[in-house]
Amino acid sequence: MTYCVAVSVKAGIVFCSDSRTNAGVDQISTYRKMHRFGRDGDRQFVILSAGNLATTQAVINQIKNDIQENAFTNIFNVPNMDSAAEYLGQVSLAQQSKYNLGSTIYEANFIIGGQIMGKPHRVMMVYPQGNYITTSKDTPYLQIGESKYGKPILDRIIEPGTTLDTAVLCALVSMDSTMRSNLTVGPPIDVCVYEADQLMQGRYFRLLQDSDYLRDLKRAWDERLKDAFRSLPPIQWDTMWDPDKDQAGS
Amino acid sequence: MTYCVAVSVKAGIVFCSDSRTNAGVDQISTYRKMHRFGRDGDRQFVILSAGNLATTQAVINQIKNDIQENAFTNIFNVPNMDSAAEYLGQVSLAQQSKYNLGSTIYEANFIIGGQIMGKPHRVMMVYPQGNYITTSKDTPYLQIGESKYGKPILDRIIEPGTTLDTAVLCALVSMDSTMRSNLTVGPPIDVCVYEADQLMQGRYFRLLQDSDYLRDLKRAWDERLKDAFRSLPPIQWDTMWDPDKDQAGS
Repeated sequence: MTYCVAVSVKAGIVFCSDSRTNAGVDQISTYRKMHRFGRDGDRQFVILSAGNLATTQAVINQIKNDIQENAFTNIFNVPNMDSAAEYLGQVSLAQQSKYNLGSTIYEANFIIGGQIMGKPHRVMMVYPQGNYITTSKDTPYLQIGESKYGKPILDRIIEPGTTLDTAVLCALVSMDSTMRSNLTVGPPIDVCVYEADQLMQGRYFRLLQDSDYLRDLKRAWDERLKDAFRSLPPIQWDTMWDPDKDQAGS
Repeated sequence: MTYCVAVSVKAGIVFCSDSRTNAGVDQISTYRKMHRFGRDGDRQFVILSAGNLATTQAVINQIKNDIQENAFTNIFNVPNMDSAAEYLGQVSLAQQSKYNLGSTIYEANFIIGGQIMGKPHRVMMVYPQGNYITTSKDTPYLQIGESKYGKPILDRIIEPGTTLDTAVLCALVSMDSTMRSNLTVGPPIDVCVYEADQLMQGRYFRLLQDSDYLRDLKRAWDERLKDAFRSLPPIQWDTMWDPDKDQAGS
């Protein structure tokens, strides 16, 4: 399994991904799921991948090859982010169809985010079927993989005006919640922060399994969350309504 | 969809369920998913249900009929909680197989918890296949339905020594997180608290859509969670490791 999230705010885009892959519980490996492509001053992309590892690796390889061979369509010559997402969807479909012989489907999901000179920065999620969606003011983030455990904190914190530092922290808390509840999501954690209109490779860092920061964040969030829970008003039993005892009260 | 959770601690069992059912987004109804059966001084059960509504209603009806007709096996004469869970699994399988003509499967999941005189209180989850699992010291709760959004807070708070009041509050926070992220889980919320060794019907209450308590809890938890997030230590960029810039540092 995998968990990747991209948060798009006015100030830029935060990307965060785990690195655990598994084919059964005894075949667990570490692969980077964050891939960066860019030409300084012209365009910058980050691609996050989830799903079948053979498919995602083949897709990333073809994107690289298309750049090197200066293919008619490649992410260094697409005119805008929509075209980049559409191109990614086509590459993904082409790779999946190569091995689509039996009933097994080697699907993959991608998030692509970034900016092309003169255009706004954007994030899209590309489905295995090749089509894609983008973020909105109401939904300023996109997730792929094991997305449910880490969704509540994003829903509560992220809005278009959120700062990049807060978005990084929130993405890491979202990742922490996911890792706590799903063993197949795990470190190293890759983080990339693209600042709007810079058109330069964003800040990137990696948190390893034994990272002090990851351990401190995990502990701090656990403590803060427990404090928050303990500070909730206790149940007032006498105000609770039992419809079975109160026939008049419906 | 549905969300039901049962928390089993030393002091007793807390049951919590939503009431929304849907067959497509424009066919949304309200049905109680919590069913109580008991004979004071002898045994008490609460059954929570998720899945196909026709199946769950048929199962609950058969359990009632078996009691009324004093069937050879019914939940008023099973010797222990394991037998109760096994009986529930058999009833569920029988009802599913009645309509299992095409490829569509009308599956249902159940949680059954309670106590029989002279035995400890216990909780089991019954799979659509009829088999079942129970709780443990490490996993003192069981969920059915849309379980992921509400799992993290249970993992952090619930342990065998947790009080019943705290377990109720935690179940409600878990329910709130689920309702916030999934539209198909919604009020009224049913809560039942069975106190260990009482063998009397537990305390029961229902929170409606416009419940003051539900609204206050939702707001309080949202505020506390945001406060908790804001109190996290900020990212220290200078301590973050970029493996691409630090060839020596792996």
